Amino acid sequence: MQHFGSNFWGEKNNGFDILYHNMKHGQISVKELADFVRERALIEETYSKSMSKLSKMVSNSSLGTFAPMWDVFRTSADKLALCHFELVRKLNDLIKEMNRFNEEQVKMHRKTKEEVSGTLEAVQNVQSSGQLLQKYKDNYQSKWLEWDRLKKDGASQKEIDKAEAKSKKAAESYKASIKKYRTARSDYQLKMADAAQKFQQVEEIHLRHMKGLIKSYSHSIEDTHVQVGQVHEEFKQNVENIRVQDLIQKYALTKGTGKEKPGPIEFEECNPEVLLEAPKKSKRKSFVIPGLGKREKDTDSTGSPDADSIVSKPTIISLTLSW
Amino acid sequence: MQHFGSNFWGEKNNGFDILYHNMKHGQISVKELADFVRERALIEETYSKSMSKLSKMVSNSSLGTFAPMWDVFRTSADKLALCHFELVRKLNDLIKEMNRFNEEQVKMHRKTKEEVSGTLEAVQNVQSSGQLLQKYKDNYQSKWLEWDRLKKDGASQKEIDKAEAKSKKAAESYKASIKKYRTARSDYQLKMADAAQKFQQVEEIHLRHMKGLIKSYSHSIEDTHVQVGQVHEEFKQNVENIRVQDLIQKYALTKGTGKEKPGPIEFEECNPEVLLEAPKKSKRKSFVIPGLGKREKDTDSTGSPDADSIVSKPTIISLTLSW
Repeated sequence: MQHFGSNFWGEKNNGFDILYHNMKHGQISVKELADFVRERALIEETYSKSMSKLSKMVSNSSLGTFAPMWDVFRTSADKLALCHFELVRKLNDLIKEMNRFNEEQVKMHRKTKEEVSGTLEAVQNVQSSGQLLQKYKDNYQSKWLEWDRLKKDGASQKEIDKAEAKSKKAAESYKASIKKYRTARSDYQLKMADAAQKFQQVEEIHLRHMKGLIKSYSHSIEDTHVQVGQVHEEFKQNVENIRVQDLIQKYALTKGTGKEKPGPIEFEECNPEVLLEAPKKSKRKSFVIPGLGKREKDTDSTGSPDADSIVSKPTIISLTLSW
Repeated sequence: MQHFGSNFWGEKNNGFDILYHNMKHGQISVKELADFVRERALIEETYSKSMSKLSKMVSNSSLGTFAPMWDVFRTSADKLALCHFELVRKLNDLIKEMNRFNEEQVKMHRKTKEEVSGTLEAVQNVQSSGQLLQKYKDNYQSKWLEWDRLKKDGASQKEIDKAEAKSKKAAESYKASIKKYRTARSDYQLKMADAAQKFQQVEEIHLRHMKGLIKSYSHSIEDTHVQVGQVHEEFKQNVENIRVQDLIQKYALTKGTGKEKPGPIEFEECNPEVLLEAPKKSKRKSFVIPGLGKREKDTDSTGSPDADSIVSKPTIISLTLSW
């Protein structure tokens, strides 16, 4: 449909000017769209960075039975940060594409401007010849009125004839200006119809390209949305997979203090005979009195005594007892 | 499974201490989870505010054929802002729920602390009686060694007898401490098994509740994700619905300068007769010379002349012409 071809006429003949500036505004539109995408990219970048920060915050939480759960949060925040960062990258690529497109567009507009330069002249021509026509018409009217006035006032024939001649001359000039205007009008109509069509074509190409850029933007947003959905699904699944009993068990296994209850203790008699009979170290697990901590180690009576003490110190019989 | 019941024994008998502090750490875990959710809520709030800002930025773009497209961007950004703001609201509610839960938990921990106070005593008892036992054992050993040395060094019988008596007395004390330790050990084993079970129950309740809170968090995130998806789907659809031809047409209709091409102009003869015959205003659309702007209005020859000029000014025959 020739929308431009039929809607940019009108009294003032400034449709051409409107359409020309609309074409040029296409360059601003691309810049505005790029600005929008840049702003969106900045928002996504901030979001991505905040998610990374959140992940680091999580890393410091690592005590108690709940601790392993934080890994799930950390992983999820890291992945979310990545998804949004990937979007930033895509949007920045898109901005570059927009800039390239705008460069092409500038060239196209320059070419179009040249192509429609004849129309601009025709517009100026029809405007100026219209003005001139009005001027000649006004002149003819005033000359005719002068002639008419002289006739009514009963002026001399000579004066009347002179005025009539002036009126007739003005009428001729008026007619000539009409002829000139008609030529300008015809030229303008042809060239303006052609330019309007050209402007509409340029606009169609511009808008198709703009829609293509929006589609590209939209795809990037959509891809990220899908990825974010997957990250969240994974988070849910991971939380589900870590059962309460798993957390309890993991804690017991990693933080447990031991499975051995304090054993029974029997009286250990001092017996120097054993010292002489068994100088080798006992292989059996020694009984240790629980609850003594470091001191217990120092007074460990079950290890093989060192050479110096073999004689001077008696061996304590180590009893391994079941309980 | 009794994970706590079997993994918190060991030499130093400090399983009770570990489990008690793990229980208390549950309060920190809730606070950490609340902190995490608060941080996430802040991130979402920032995102929401940025989207609102983006929407306002879009509102300033309104020239050219592309202009109507910005409405789609603006609407989408506004809706995205709303989605994320709704999430902020939900997360803040969740934080309140976490705080309430923690208050309940503090009471529960206080109650549990009272219930296991007997176990704490039993732990202290088994530790101190174990230390005492070691002390009596050491004493017995040194007394026995003294007696043994006197015998080997050929000391007087009186001295040997005295040392033997001391050694026997030390052995008795040693035996008594073993008996005391056995009682403490038995008490400790019973009470510790009971406390471990209690701690595990507390932990299970804590973790189930924590998982419930995570689920609530997860649902809110998921709801928002679905809403954001809908907003994007709507955006895509809206962009799709606005065809290039629609934009062209809309621009032509709103910014169009008129459908009328400059008409043909005929010579208008001055004729005072018409003035006298037809003083009524012509109903037909008048012909206007295009291209004259304001001046054209001033010199409009087609309107009915005002009363003063009816006689003094002739009427110009207005011709409505087809072209």
